Amino acid sequence: MSTVRVITNILEANDRIARQNADMFAKAGVYVVNLMSSPGAGKTSLLERTVDALQGRYRLGVIEGDIQSSVDAERIGRRGVQAVQVNTGGACHLDGNLIRDALEEFSLPDLDCLVVENVGNLVCPAEFKLGEDVKVMILSVPEGDDKPLKYPLMFQESAALIINKVDLLPYVSCSVERIEDRARALNPKIEIFRVSCTTGEGIDAWTGWLADQIARKRAGVLP
Amino acid sequence: MSTVRVITNILEANDRIARQNADMFAKAGVYVVNLMSSPGAGKTSLLERTVDALQGRYRLGVIEGDIQSSVDAERIGRRGVQAVQVNTGGACHLDGNLIRDALEEFSLPDLDCLVVENVGNLVCPAEFKLGEDVKVMILSVPEGDDKPLKYPLMFQESAALIINKVDLLPYVSCSVERIEDRARALNPKIEIFRVSCTTGEGIDAWTGWLADQIARKRAGVLP
Repeated sequence: MSTVRVITNILEANDRIARQNADMFAKAGVYVVNLMSSPGAGKTSLLERTVDALQGRYRLGVIEGDIQSSVDAERIGRRGVQAVQVNTGGACHLDGNLIRDALEEFSLPDLDCLVVENVGNLVCPAEFKLGEDVKVMILSVPEGDDKPLKYPLMFQESAALIINKVDLLPYVSCSVERIEDRARALNPKIEIFRVSCTTGEGIDAWTGWLADQIARKRAGVLP
Repeated sequence: MSTVRVITNILEANDRIARQNADMFAKAGVYVVNLMSSPGAGKTSLLERTVDALQGRYRLGVIEGDIQSSVDAERIGRRGVQAVQVNTGGACHLDGNLIRDALEEFSLPDLDCLVVENVGNLVCPAEFKLGEDVKVMILSVPEGDDKPLKYPLMFQESAALIINKVDLLPYVSCSVERIEDRARALNPKIEIFRVSCTTGEGIDAWTGWLADQIARKRAGVLP
């Protein structure tokens, strides 16, 4: 019982910090995406595609969350976007406090969109708010179509689901239709994009949706 | 600081229960495997292949760990092996206590080997001992060869690494050699098996190693 109480207190304390972060983002008009998935589903590859599509039109920043290493921030930094690596030192998710620390590296008024790449994990990242406008999750088809049954919270919490690696569909046992049906059963309003970061298929639909969200935030239409 | 202290206490309490579980396994001569990976790397598929290879020679039991659902226990149960589903109700890993509760469903002296399929997560399962003889991890090639850099603890803790889905190598950007080099840099003694649960490639080497371990435990050679 005491374990449950401790975890509740941690989540409540995190929610307070997340609200402070959200206030900072609102004041600066920055649209913030919390990008989540299993390890290796393609978060960094999607970010590379997204930067390539939107850079020039919007001013982008990236926070890279990993337990250790800075390989992802280096990958994104090569594209000319400010990328700050946050190492959790063991923790399986980012939290509001880690984001607040990372924000000291950015000039928020100079950004239109900040994408936070969470630690690769389908579980705990869905529980810890960062102050984001929106949670976006990736599920890659080699992971299988049973994942909404086994990790429902992330599907419930995400505004958009990106089904990645659709170029591998001929070689794996996975039904995209079944993923979509199961995701919509958990979250009827979820936006779904079928993409391949390898071939580029479907990237335009995703970046079009994201661009529209960024524009609405700047126009003050989003809260 | 208080968060760190709480987590340390939780791990210490868990270690005590895990030692009690290990004593029960030793008394019964049951070899216990803690099987870990990302979601969708192929834990249940490997278990199906393992059951097919060893059933008849050894008496097997399975504990299936998931946040919710019982789809995995049903898959394994269809093969005529006792499979007990443990739902964590939100937690991202199994712990000693959950295993102790599940053990009430088994008659340990009637088993040679118990495989515990952990929650799909490359992070926290590596921190929580269950009382197992050995940790075994799966990395599937679509996840990419950078995973040892980003999730080192699991590679350090595992006695064996199964590189799964090698049938997908022609279609993904992943070097098995790089995975192996990076895993051995973290853990020079790690046993590595390249397998495909789809084609059956490499399964014999893995099940041969496991059969040898089970036999050594029964003979009292393993502690």
